[in-house]
Formats: sequence, structure tokens, C-alpha cells
Amino acid sequence: MSLTTLKQQVFEANLALPRHRLVTFTWGNVSAIDRSSGLVAIKPSGVEYDGMTVDDIVVVELETGRTVEGSKKPSSDTATHLALYRAFADIGGIVHTHSRHATIWAQAGLDLPAWGTTHADYFYGNIPCTRLMTPQEIADDYEHNTGEVIIDTFRSRGISPAAIPAVLVNAHGPFAWGSTADNAVHNAVVLEEIAYMGIFSRQLTPGMKDMQQVLLDKHYLRKHGAGAYYGQ
Amino acid sequence: MSLTTLKQQVFEANLALPRHRLVTFTWGNVSAIDRSSGLVAIKPSGVEYDGMTVDDIVVVELETGRTVEGSKKPSSDTATHLALYRAFADIGGIVHTHSRHATIWAQAGLDLPAWGTTHADYFYGNIPCTRLMTPQEIADDYEHNTGEVIIDTFRSRGISPAAIPAVLVNAHGPFAWGSTADNAVHNAVVLEEIAYMGIFSRQLTPGMKDMQQVLLDKHYLRKHGAGAYYGQ
Amino acid sequence: MSLTTLKQQVFEANLALPRHRLVTFTWGNVSAIDRSSGLVAIKPSGVEYDGMTVDDIVVVELETGRTVEGSKKPSSDTATHLALYRAFADIGGIVHTHSRHATIWAQAGLDLPAWGTTHADYFYGNIPCTRLMTPQEIADDYEHNTGEVIIDTFRSRGISPAAIPAVLVNAHGPFAWGSTADNAVHNAVVLEEIAYMGIFSRQLTPGMKDMQQVLLDKHYLRKHGAGAYYGQ
Amino acid sequence: MSLTTLKQQVFEANLALPRHRLVTFTWGNVSAIDRSSGLVAIKPSGVEYDGMTVDDIVVVELETGRTVEGSKKPSSDTATHLALYRAFADIGGIVHTHSRHATIWAQAGLDLPAWGTTHADYFYGNIPCTRLMTPQEIADDYEHNTGEVIIDTFRSRGISPAAIPAVLVNAHGPFAWGSTADNAVHNAVVLEEIAYMGIFSRQLTPGMKDMQQVLLDKHYLRKHGAGAYYGQ
Repeated sequence: MSLTTLKQQVFEANLALPRHRLVTFTWGNVSAIDRSSGLVAIKPSGVEYDGMTVDDIVVVELETGRTVEGSKKPSSDTATHLALYRAFADIGGIVHTHSRHATIWAQAGLDLPAWGTTHADYFYGNIPCTRLMTPQEIADDYEHNTGEVIIDTFRSRGISPAAIPAVLVNAHGPFAWGSTADNAVHNAVVLEEIAYMGIFSRQLTPGMKDMQQVLLDKHYLRKHGAGAYYGQ
Repeated sequence: MSLTTLKQQVFEANLALPRHRLVTFTWGNVSAIDRSSGLVAIKPSGVEYDGMTVDDIVVVELETGRTVEGSKKPSSDTATHLALYRAFADIGGIVHTHSRHATIWAQAGLDLPAWGTTHADYFYGNIPCTRLMTPQEIADDYEHNTGEVIIDTFRSRGISPAAIPAVLVNAHGPFAWGSTADNAVHNAVVLEEIAYMGIFSRQLTPGMKDMQQVLLDKHYLRKHGAGAYYGQ
Repeated sequence: MSLTTLKQQVFEANLALPRHRLVTFTWGNVSAIDRSSGLVAIKPSGVEYDGMTVDDIVVVELETGRTVEGSKKPSSDTATHLALYRAFADIGGIVHTHSRHATIWAQAGLDLPAWGTTHADYFYGNIPCTRLMTPQEIADDYEHNTGEVIIDTFRSRGISPAAIPAVLVNAHGPFAWGSTADNAVHNAVVLEEIAYMGIFSRQLTPGMKDMQQVLLDKHYLRKHGAGAYYGQ
Repeated sequence: MSLTTLKQQVFEANLALPRHRLVTFTWGNVSAIDRSSGLVAIKPSGVEYDGMTVDDIVVVELETGRTVEGSKKPSSDTATHLALYRAFADIGGIVHTHSRHATIWAQAGLDLPAWGTTHADYFYGNIPCTRLMTPQEIADDYEHNTGEVIIDTFRSRGISPAAIPAVLVNAHGPFAWGSTADNAVHNAVVLEEIAYMGIFSRQLTPGMKDMQQVLLDKHYLRKHGAGAYYGQ
């Protein structure tokens, strides 16, 4: 993929965040990676969505984080994105927001359980909430360590980032990812929907159990993998 | 009714879903039936509302499910729609969504009680939530069996689909129906309103009892049946 | 006031309901009275706000309910409005909606307590919820009796309709009133705001007490009566 | 700064309130101060945002409250603004609203705890709720005393108004402030976001503890002070 295309995709995916009401002010960022060149395009830090142009998108190297194109500073969360791209080899786009309802679960420090087919259509199980970071992890290279604690959560709990393309960072907010920047935004929108519904389903039925595994399987697999039959 | 008219009605009813904020992405579908020809028009599977045209609407046979018009695959939920049309002989349109608050009740696995006149103006009693489906029902012909479990719920509990034109499918979301596609959407909107209000009425007064039967009768019957006097 | 002016005011006040997001479909109606002629202008029954014209507004006599102008049937709630105009001699406009949060309190069967200055700026105390109506009151002249139970609530509890220009009809929804149609809509908007906030204030602090009487006095009286000093 | 510039900034900041959905009707006001001249520009009392012009903005003297420019009465809350400008020497703009979720916390009489990084990015600790005012404070010079009880809250609890640029006035609603009118509105928007999220985080995890101090430090200090590195 050309760098121009990568930047354009990241630009458009960033603009999709306010359109889907996932961000207030500048509280979100989307990136995408071109695996062949090892380059990552990402939103500049603290820049308003209104008035942002594709030329504001910053390109950094996956391995070093060094800026190779763009005059602005990349998102302050760039190191988190890079850590995830390095560890999760199959993902092509990442989005971070403080969308209200996903953030509510993150602040509450709870996994978002799989409670319905809306969840199962996109996420093959509960969406994990990370453990609290240590004072050392926070003090030293915080944004990189935010990525590491996400990776550690998936590895230690045996969760596949392909099957569960989102995480709740404890006391912070959600990251979602996908095959592309656009797909990552799509997953972030779904996460916000199911986070909203989860809050009130749990209010109606405290102590709700996870949905039936067979129903989870059915819905996830009718949209994903070799047996998928949803869509055109 | 001409097939052109049927398709146009289904097309417009599908577009009404995002306008009433009942759907995110492609998470909804509306169909309608022409009883004389035994043909059902329905949304294509996984197609965005933006950019969809009337030519995208798919026409299938009620009895066989075979596509007779349209180049796209019909909604993945088509078999559910067909089962309902076969069992509920008086309905002309069906809508399925994952609208937030109706889905919350479905995920919680609870009937939506008749708690006020807004409910009573459209639904003559509680809106049932289906039982969990069996592993066999899920594994084998899932979408058809989703219809069957709805039908079973109405039959076994003695509920009239004319008097209660909606259902909550357990751990999934709502289906609503009506005399036409447009009327089904209307009922889906009402369901979402009363689902919202029910969550918080119950928060204010835990253990709320159903509304008075005489008041339910009054409101339902001033809008439905021989004694109706609402409207022009 | 000329009948033309009265109808125009009622027309515009009805259109304000969807603009303030107080109604879904046709679930609301506004009326106003010209005390000198004893005529009441009101929304027609079951007519959509989109496409309604001032000529659709119906004029009825206060004492008899007889239509004196307009080719449509007046709102099915007309008898409620007329009962209130007869009993509350100082009010000039009435609005009925099923606005979500006021209806939630009505469904829960609870008064809306005065819990903050937003409430106190407009309502001089708790907003009452009516008692349940008797089967006889529901069966026979229901809409008129809805008015009577409101009037009975205010009289038996010693509440002034001037000081508390709204009521929650049990298991139904709110009525609000005011000096004019426009002022009644204004009060209906405020009611919806405070109903929303009350639900969640009570969630944060169960068993909340009413606000301080001195603060209620201060806010109500800085906007109402001889000592008012708010506004131009 | 010229008076023309100050008034223009206050005018635009007031218009930002409905755009951010922080106000209903006229329930909000923004002011700003020019410290060199000791003049404060503020919204006129009870004037609708629609149709308001920059010429409607009123200019008063910080020390006396006397109007020096403008033909309208200043906001009824002017005395509160002036008290805060006198006590908090570093602030340049103040905003008062009845925004729904901040007001919910104010009505509940509770501090808004620091429960996540969204909060920590802007507020260096819990946002205090003031004590109840005494009958004397309410009866005599109420708006001035509203300012005094805010000041007393910050002083007696050792809170810095620079580090916590907002307060919840008990049973009333929020005030926020900042370096300019625009910055104060920004903080009011953030307050509303975190007030919303706090309600439901607490619902999910009753008895939640404050966030880790090290995480609060990290987020606040990456945006504020000498070590800040967020933004361009």
C-alpha cells in the first residue's frame, strides 16, 4: 500500500470517530500500519478533528517510533499503538477513544461479559479489562507500558487478539483494533454499543451469567471464518 | 399489491430504521409479504442503509425461501421472517433490530411488563421474552428455529400476535410486526420507547406490579377494534 | 385575543414538542384557551406534526366541548384539557406528552421531589403523582375523569396549580400548564429535565431528602411574584 | 485586552454552551475578566442564546459590580462570578450551567471522585461539592454567598482552584473556570463527561475507590506544568 493511501485511510478513520460520537474534543486517535514497509500512520497529538487535513497525519517507524513524515508530533499514545502492532502481528489498524460506556466499564475495572448476539457477532468472548499498572510501569515509559499491560492481559489469559479485537484499559478507556483503520473504528463502535447495553442488562438482572457458549459460537462463526454466511 | 409496490414499501421501511435511531451499521432488516402471491420482500444481507436502492431489495417465496427477484443474498434472518409469516397469518410486515433498550431486556432474559399507557396504546399485555434455545435448535437451522421459538412462546403462553406485535428473543434482540412494513417499524419504535422507560421505572420502584387491567383495556381498546375512537 | 391568534399559538406550541424531543409520533398535544370567549384551541387527534397546518387546529367550546371550528376531530385528550381549564381558572395553556423521564416517574407512581434549584426555579415544591383511577372512572368518561383526578390531587393535597404547573398522571404521563401554550411547553421541557436528573440523583443518594425549604423559596421567588429579579 | 475582544470572547463562549448541549433555555452563563482594567464581561440575565448579539454582553466592574457598558441587566449570577474572580486571582473565565450529569452529582450532594484518566487529564483530584448554605447565607446576598461557599470549600479543604477548575454547588449545579472564557467552557464540557461516566462506573462497582494516585499524577502532569508533553 502506498503511504498516501495509508495516510488517507488513517485520516478518514479519525474523522469517523466524531461522526460516530465516540470522541469529545481530541480524545481519540486512529492509526494503521503498512506491514511491508514497517510504517505506521497516526493522528497528530492534541489536534482538533475540525480542520485537520491528511497532511497532519504523522508517519512513524514501527521499530523505532521515529517520525519519517509529517511536521507535527504524533499522538501521545503512539507508543501504545506501536507495542500492539509489534505483539499482534495480524492487526492492521488501532483506535483509542474515551467513548462513554466502554470507559465506564474500564473505570469500574471490569471485563465486559458476552451477554448477547450483538457482542457475539464481533467478539468471541468477554472483552478483558487490564490489571492495574504498577507505579514503575506508570512512571517509566507509561504509554509503551500501557501497550505491554494489554499484551500481557491477552497472553496471560490466553485470549486471541483476532477473536477479541478490543480491550478495556483499567481506569482509562478502550482500545480496539482490526484488519484496517476502518475496521478498527467499526469494532470501537460495536464495543460502545455493547458496553451501553451491558450496563443496563446487568441492572435488570444482577448476577447475569454469560450467554450460552453454543449461541456465542453460532453468531461469531456465522460472521467469521470458513463457515461464515453473513453478508454478500 | 404489485411487486414494485411491495419492494418500495420494504425499501422505505428499511430506511426508516436509521432515521428512528433503531440500528447501528446494518443491524436491522424489514420485510413485507404479499399474501396473494406468497412473495416476501426483504433487505439484502449486510448491506449499508446509505447507498441501498430499491433494486437491492430481495424477493423470496414464502414457502420455499427461494429468491425470485434480486441479485443479492437476502438477510441472514430471512428464515426467521418466513417462519413468522407462515405461523402468524394476519401479519404483513416484520422488523428485526438490535435497538438498544429492547435488546437490553432481551439480554436480561425478561418480559417487558405493561407498565403504562404508552405500552397499552400498542401492546395488549406484557411483551414476552423467549426461552433459551437448545443446542440442537442453535446448531441446526438456527434462523428458522429462532422463528419457531418465537411461535412456540406465543402459542404455549396463549399470546395473540395481533394483540402483542413484538417479542424479545432471549440474549438476542427484538422482532416486531404489523399489518405492513411501515406499521411494523412503528411498533418497533414504540417498543424501544417503552423498553427505555421500563428500565428506569423499575429502578425507581423495584418490584413494580403490572398496570391495572382496566387501564390497559381502556387504552388498548380506544385505539384498536370496533370501539376505537383515537385518530381521525 | 382573536381566534386566528389563538390557533396560531397552539399550532406553534404543538410544533415545539418534537423540536424539544418531548414526543414520539403523535404522542402529545397542546391547547390554549381564550377566557373571554370561552373557546379552546387544540391539536387534532392522531395527526402527525410533520405536515400539520394551522387549519388543522380544532376549536371547541370550554363548557360543552362542542367543536366550533375545524374539520378534524380534536385530540382524544380534549376532555382532560377542558376539565383542567374549568377547575384551574388562571391557566391559559396545557400540554400533554409521554416524554420519557416524566413518564418514568408517572409509571413508577411517584411524586417528583424538589431536589435542586432547577426544579425550584419553576416549581414551588414536589410535583404530585395522581392516585390510581377507579375502574368506574376509567370505564366511564375516562378522559374527563383523568382531569378530575388531577384536580382532586391538587385540591386534596392543598397544592396550587399556579405554583406547581405540572402533574404526573399515574401509569400514564405528564400534563403541564402555564399562562399560555408556549409557557406550558416551557414547563413541560423543564419537567423533563428535572425528571431525568431526579432519577440519577436518587441513584447516587438513595433516600435523598427534599432540598432546603429556604433554598426552594429563594429560587422560586427570585423568578416569580413581586420580589422577582431574574431576567430583563 | 480590549473590551471589544473581551466581549467577543464572552459572546462566543456563551454560544458554545448550547452547541455542547450544556444548557436548556437560558440556564447558563459565561464571563471573562480583564485583570488589567478590572472589568468583567458577562451574559445578560434571562436572554435566549438564539438572537443574542455581542452588544447584549454586559460589562461590570470587578470591585463594585457596577455596570459600565451594556443596556441589559447582567446575569443574576454575576455576584457569584465576581466573588470567584476576587478570590481566585489566576482565573480568567467562569461558566455556570445546569448540565444534566454534573447537576445530578450536585443534587446528590456528593463530590465527583477521580475515577479515570479522562478526569485526571483535566482535574487533579476529586471535584468538591459545597456544603449546604445556611438560611442566613441564602436569605441575604444569596448569589454573592454562593461564591463565598465555593471559596470556603476550596480553602477549608486545601484545594487549589488551578488544579481543580470546577465545583459542584450543593442542590444547584456546576461552576467551572479556566484561563479564558473558552477554557472554562472546555472544562465544563469535560466535567459533564466525567460526571456521566462516574454515575455508571459507580453503578457497576459500588464502593469504588479513587484511582491510583500515581496514575492521576501521570495523566494530569503530562498535560499540565513544566513536564507536559501532550499536544503540539
